[in-house]
Amino acid sequence: MKKEIPYKIYLSENELPYTWCNLRAFMQNKPAPLLSPKTMQPITVEELSEVFCEELAKQELDDTTPYIDIPTEVRDFYKMYRPAPLIRAYCLEKKLGTPAHIYYKFEGNNTSGSHKLNSAIAQAYYAKQQGLKGVTTETGAGQWGTALSMACSYFGLDCNVFMVKCSYEQKPFRREVMRTYGANVTPSPSMTTEVGKKINAEFPGTNGSLGCAISEAVEAASTREGYRYVLGSVLNQVLLHQSVIGMETKTALDKYGVKADIIIGCAGGGSNLGGLIAPFMAEKLQGKADYRFIAVEPSSCPTLTRGKYAYDYCDTGKICPLSKMYTLGSGFIPAASHAGGLRYHGMTSTLSELYDQGLMEARSVKQTDVFEAAEYFARIEGILPAPESSHAIRVAMDEAIKCRETGEKKVIVFGLTGTGYFDMMSYEKFHDGKMTDYIPTDGEIEKGLAGLPNL
Amino acid sequence: MKKEIPYKIYLSENELPYTWCNLRAFMQNKPAPLLSPKTMQPITVEELSEVFCEELAKQELDDTTPYIDIPTEVRDFYKMYRPAPLIRAYCLEKKLGTPAHIYYKFEGNNTSGSHKLNSAIAQAYYAKQQGLKGVTTETGAGQWGTALSMACSYFGLDCNVFMVKCSYEQKPFRREVMRTYGANVTPSPSMTTEVGKKINAEFPGTNGSLGCAISEAVEAASTREGYRYVLGSVLNQVLLHQSVIGMETKTALDKYGVKADIIIGCAGGGSNLGGLIAPFMAEKLQGKADYRFIAVEPSSCPTLTRGKYAYDYCDTGKICPLSKMYTLGSGFIPAASHAGGLRYHGMTSTLSELYDQGLMEARSVKQTDVFEAAEYFARIEGILPAPESSHAIRVAMDEAIKCRETGEKKVIVFGLTGTGYFDMMSYEKFHDGKMTDYIPTDGEIEKGLAGLPNL
Repeated sequence: MKKEIPYKIYLSENELPYTWCNLRAFMQNKPAPLLSPKTMQPITVEELSEVFCEELAKQELDDTTPYIDIPTEVRDFYKMYRPAPLIRAYCLEKKLGTPAHIYYKFEGNNTSGSHKLNSAIAQAYYAKQQGLKGVTTETGAGQWGTALSMACSYFGLDCNVFMVKCSYEQKPFRREVMRTYGANVTPSPSMTTEVGKKINAEFPGTNGSLGCAISEAVEAASTREGYRYVLGSVLNQVLLHQSVIGMETKTALDKYGVKADIIIGCAGGGSNLGGLIAPFMAEKLQGKADYRFIAVEPSSCPTLTRGKYAYDYCDTGKICPLSKMYTLGSGFIPAASHAGGLRYHGMTSTLSELYDQGLMEARSVKQTDVFEAAEYFARIEGILPAPESSHAIRVAMDEAIKCRETGEKKVIVFGLTGTGYFDMMSYEKFHDGKMTDYIPTDGEIEKGLAGLPNL
Repeated sequence: MKKEIPYKIYLSENELPYTWCNLRAFMQNKPAPLLSPKTMQPITVEELSEVFCEELAKQELDDTTPYIDIPTEVRDFYKMYRPAPLIRAYCLEKKLGTPAHIYYKFEGNNTSGSHKLNSAIAQAYYAKQQGLKGVTTETGAGQWGTALSMACSYFGLDCNVFMVKCSYEQKPFRREVMRTYGANVTPSPSMTTEVGKKINAEFPGTNGSLGCAISEAVEAASTREGYRYVLGSVLNQVLLHQSVIGMETKTALDKYGVKADIIIGCAGGGSNLGGLIAPFMAEKLQGKADYRFIAVEPSSCPTLTRGKYAYDYCDTGKICPLSKMYTLGSGFIPAASHAGGLRYHGMTSTLSELYDQGLMEARSVKQTDVFEAAEYFARIEGILPAPESSHAIRVAMDEAIKCRETGEKKVIVFGLTGTGYFDMMSYEKFHDGKMTDYIPTDGEIEKGLAGLPNL
């Protein structure tokens, strides 16, 4: 007999996973290796260790170990906000009149407001283990920077965040959260790095960009004794740490004898989606179970749905390794959108390869449709979702509506990666009818792809 | 044998209380009755029902029923965000080096960001039951307004919020959360009510005040067919609904065989503290167990510590009933502070009476000390607390430090009523060293008290 399913499935702290799931280890056709931007050859742990912590460099290149132990210290920190609830969307199902069962894994119940903390704490831990003084990173809207600040504060590490200047000035709230956690937040481009000075000289009064902030953070890490650079998405190590989302989700569903049919997540760099689907995709790859996976991206930045599968630089400044991935070209500048966390030109190599193999679907959605779903969801389920997360809500609702039409009783699971408390300006635009949609023309896409490196 | 205590004690949904605890029913010396502002006689259910929903008017005057059933519909809504976790502050204890055991009941894991939702949903439910079209209310910073908007959205009620104009303009974020939930938010004073027009004519360009917003909300309720006025604190009915906090806390502690020694909460109007202590105080009043209770208030608005126990108006406009309470006088205007939720001149009658009987202690704290505690707590425990809640953190830490000095292994429980995501401007001031403290002079206190009605 099946157990009655509560509104919120909370696992006990004992059920928190002891290992991360390394999805690549289950793939027969592995993602192509990262290339060094200097040699254009597969990058080595030694080369990567110049920029990243050693243990993280190892994780980055490990595509054979299926499960990697979560260090006790990291697991203890996880206990402060995990296991995260898996919520049965009873109210949404009822309102939609769908026979589908909808579940969402909610990652917003921590002060950073998103899943980013799962990897931030792991990266801070390995930095501390290596005896580093601190880390540097960049942040746009500030979600990753906030998460890293919390993690560094916990381990007593110095945290230097280069924040894109326009965000630093226009969105002071996340900046203040970071300062609350003791981080040094520098508007980028700054006068504290060579590259920052150069950009300031070249473009006086510039508002900065993520590409520039990355360059400053990497320079700061490499020129300061005892510092390394850390990154919140795209990398394999980040997907690995984020697999805690999927591991918990699977444990919770298994506990209640529920088998998912469709698993949906928003995808910018791909870390949240990669983490959510990891153990499920591992089963699929082993022929143990079948699932449909849907990556949802903004139509303004349609990496999977309109990009090309090719080697490209991970950053605009072309100083980071190259990755074979679906990309719109590292020179593609997505139109300003209200889902800043999804404005990335590429897609993490693992998801790119899985998509290329036809093991995962992708869908792009317009932001007005996304905000419509976000508001609908908030009113029914209570939680105010982040615009990024709301991409997954949109498609989960669309699939549930299809079930209403076909009468199918599918089990839909989606990732609700975070809350929208710091996105109220965007909601305001939506309420005032001032939000527009932007879909790049074929010419714009072609222009971006024309900049791909010749390899 | 005692069970090992996890970081977070999550009760199951079956353990969610079925009843609210009506603290007054346990008191031998009851709080003095509310007086009608028209007759200066004890107010009747009929008189109260002109402004409030009938069932709520009954609850307001019921001081004999010890436990009141939580309606199934309200309990179902509670399941969306309750039971709220009772968190063992392991990290804080370790950092403070105290032998004390610290627990906090965290009410911030819902979109309204605070405990206010516990009463908002109950009030909306009774309004719906009565067949009303909608409700009106006032809000300052917007926590109560947000909670009420969510509750009304759930039950399909029209929600009209009069928001103090300066907050409406300077703090647009909570306003947008309310709009997301479908509320009509009107800057007060507005031109939609007679009292608003009058105030606008008298003080052109005024920024409004809570007193004025209350007057507009009450007028709007009484002049529109099918509307009633609702309030988020001070009233007995609100304390009743908030007792769900204490009921869950007690169940969680009992489950692990833990007996609290000191229970601490911040106190503005007193709803959160009254709710938290309800079942514990009931035990104390019955001689079943002893506890120390500490109400923490801002030194800028020292209602209990420097006020007078007397009949006073609950609102600045003197249109609401009079309550016997500790008060600084309804004309006392507390200095601007960063804990807007604690800027109230009086204290709910139940807590006032308990304090007068010596059953509860009170302490006032300076806001710079409060923010120091808030930041310390955030860095150690991860959660970014609201300034209001941080008053309780300050005193909990002080008590834990005393235990370090005496070696006592006391069990300290405090209420963490909400999150500080919308208070980053205040944190910024603190970080920049621009926060000041204000303690009213004896003359200012005397002036406020001089305005008390002669009864």
